[in-house]
Amino acid sequence: MPSKALFTDLYELTMAQAYLEEGKTGRAVFSLFVRKMPHRRNFLVSCGLEPLLEALEDFKFQDQEIKYIKSLGIFKDWFLDYLKEYRFNADLYAIPEGRIIFHNEPIIQVEGPLPDVQILETLVINIIHYNTLLASKSARCYIASKGKTLVDFGLRRAHGLDAGLYGARACYIGGFAGTSNLMAGMKYNIPVFGTMAHSFVMVFEEEEEAFRAFAKSFPNRTVFLIDTYDTLEGAKKALKLIKEGIKVVGVRIDSGDVKSLSREVKEIFEREGFKDVKIVVSGGVDEEDIQRWLSEGAPIDIFGVGTKLLTSSDEPYLDIAYKLVEYEGKPKFKLSPGKKTFPYKRQVIRHYENGLMSYDEVVPYREGGLVELVCKKGNAVKSLPTLKEIRELFMEELSKLPPALKSLDRREEYRVILL
Amino acid sequence: MPSKALFTDLYELTMAQAYLEEGKTGRAVFSLFVRKMPHRRNFLVSCGLEPLLEALEDFKFQDQEIKYIKSLGIFKDWFLDYLKEYRFNADLYAIPEGRIIFHNEPIIQVEGPLPDVQILETLVINIIHYNTLLASKSARCYIASKGKTLVDFGLRRAHGLDAGLYGARACYIGGFAGTSNLMAGMKYNIPVFGTMAHSFVMVFEEEEEAFRAFAKSFPNRTVFLIDTYDTLEGAKKALKLIKEGIKVVGVRIDSGDVKSLSREVKEIFEREGFKDVKIVVSGGVDEEDIQRWLSEGAPIDIFGVGTKLLTSSDEPYLDIAYKLVEYEGKPKFKLSPGKKTFPYKRQVIRHYENGLMSYDEVVPYREGGLVELVCKKGNAVKSLPTLKEIRELFMEELSKLPPALKSLDRREEYRVILL
Repeated sequence: MPSKALFTDLYELTMAQAYLEEGKTGRAVFSLFVRKMPHRRNFLVSCGLEPLLEALEDFKFQDQEIKYIKSLGIFKDWFLDYLKEYRFNADLYAIPEGRIIFHNEPIIQVEGPLPDVQILETLVINIIHYNTLLASKSARCYIASKGKTLVDFGLRRAHGLDAGLYGARACYIGGFAGTSNLMAGMKYNIPVFGTMAHSFVMVFEEEEEAFRAFAKSFPNRTVFLIDTYDTLEGAKKALKLIKEGIKVVGVRIDSGDVKSLSREVKEIFEREGFKDVKIVVSGGVDEEDIQRWLSEGAPIDIFGVGTKLLTSSDEPYLDIAYKLVEYEGKPKFKLSPGKKTFPYKRQVIRHYENGLMSYDEVVPYREGGLVELVCKKGNAVKSLPTLKEIRELFMEELSKLPPALKSLDRREEYRVILL
Repeated sequence: MPSKALFTDLYELTMAQAYLEEGKTGRAVFSLFVRKMPHRRNFLVSCGLEPLLEALEDFKFQDQEIKYIKSLGIFKDWFLDYLKEYRFNADLYAIPEGRIIFHNEPIIQVEGPLPDVQILETLVINIIHYNTLLASKSARCYIASKGKTLVDFGLRRAHGLDAGLYGARACYIGGFAGTSNLMAGMKYNIPVFGTMAHSFVMVFEEEEEAFRAFAKSFPNRTVFLIDTYDTLEGAKKALKLIKEGIKVVGVRIDSGDVKSLSREVKEIFEREGFKDVKIVVSGGVDEEDIQRWLSEGAPIDIFGVGTKLLTSSDEPYLDIAYKLVEYEGKPKFKLSPGKKTFPYKRQVIRHYENGLMSYDEVVPYREGGLVELVCKKGNAVKSLPTLKEIRELFMEELSKLPPALKSLDRREEYRVILL
């Protein structure tokens, strides 16, 4: 089984060898931050620290990997020995998961011997980037949902399997009630949801027969998918079964004009006094849909959000970078157009007005601010919060976010002052 | 170490239990296809079969996973026994990797006992979706590059680690020369590229000192990153070293006005007779940039393409589905608005005119067409092509693609007739 160590760009290793050869092994600080807010985001949610720490534990070059690197024919034997011995042994500073953050704020800062912290670059960016991207996207859905239930249905169209896993976790932090993804359910103890697909309905001669079969196998958690042939007819069949005493939690609509269908379906149940049947909607849903449908009064209780969520399709990446900001106590910055960086290890001081976030200052590091020391020489200095605690922290953060920044549209940029 | 079996939506398992309970264990065919071409794609490239078969081998519910599923409290003991024994044992039909494909063409068809093939849905979609998305995106870059060299730099901003791995492989199929990703290099024997980042230059007091240090450690493969402070000054320093006899393969520009900088930098070397110094360009590059720069005559030899490639940022997902099309020999189709499906296992017959693809017919399955039988009862019926062979097949396919469909802009849709 390969480790995580090879999820690395070749240039991290060429640089490390040249650093070692030149004796450039002094203390360096790298900072991971988002250079510019994406156009369609007013805030971001820090996410990915726990997955990152797990990957760092597994960042060890194994024999087959050393053999492969040697086969490239460009590295020296003493450097391969260095890699063999490599273990994560740096200091790591982080803005805790669940915190609301903005551009230029150091989500992760890694401090240690230069070659050791350089070669972590690719892994650190990869994991924090996607997790933060997803927590931020899911938070928008949560805001739009106004207390309705959200479920992540995105595994199938996430970019690979670990995107599905990280994504489910990030969405839970961002306010989702759960996921369809069993791996995420097992690994992170996130509630799992799901009942049936169209194929299930289609296998039976009659839709009603399919509903009965499902209810028989799962008497206490039935949600019928009612749009395989005709949504309103499907709803009437569900109603018939309810009247027979079958316990139906809800019905799901996966296509069509959701706004009017949800209303008509709800009415079919309400007319007969079954007000508790939940209306579940899925199929290409995003936060704009959720906001629009709810503002139009569509009686939807649960949203299954998938593809557009787990691919963060309106903003599929962040302008995130892992930059050298300090070496041997000296400031480091580059001047490339559009890619200026700011020197030194940093702290973020947040200022509030009337209980709401007002502006942030990013200052040379001192204790007492958003940034916390997480690892000292590779060892955790305190235990990580549980996923529930991270989620609660996010909810608390959200209550302090100025209302304008909760808009799905781009608003005036939050003020981040670099000092 | 968890297997791949839990990368599954809960509803696959609830459906499977209900199928088994109702004796719905007849032969079913599921078809994976793209319902509609993405707006910005004129063609797609089939990709992901080999990663899928690898994952299917590992699709086994292990003890800890069974324990977790049991803990959900909704499944019956006999069903957990079924899961414990589950092995991939179906027939699998595929359009080979590297083939150019269009909407409604069955990339993968899985045929076997209904519950057995239902529960593969999430995994099959996840892997084929991302791989096909990426091969299709990279093919656009390849077309735009007109024979220049392309390197995948996308691992850091791919959505997770396996997106980086699958992505590097898909890009190699789509015409890329290699990747920065060491894991992809090792696993798939793809050429790896990379030399230095800005941090390397910044650690040294002087840029020139950094260049010298790198060239000393890697005398035969030096590419200097020249835009950390001032691109033209950086080029002059590289020139100085070349004149001293240091072997420099090329220089990389990662920011600024690439069109004019690449020209000025090229001139700095050409004026002194060093015509072979390659110009490498990176930093937010996509196929539109490549096409524009080359059409404007920018003397670029190598493009490093990253974020926008591995996130397929202009089209971050495909409208792909895994649908039941046949059960016990009978046709199956649903009528949901916008999501109609077509029954029966299918073959794709491609028609050519003057050596160019003219139109496709999707017909009930028979031998002899794009679709091939790959596995019989879970066992491979022939050996898979090598990655190089897949890449060559793609190149051959590309030579038969009508010129209009090679445009980066959307053209008239290729004709796919469903019979």
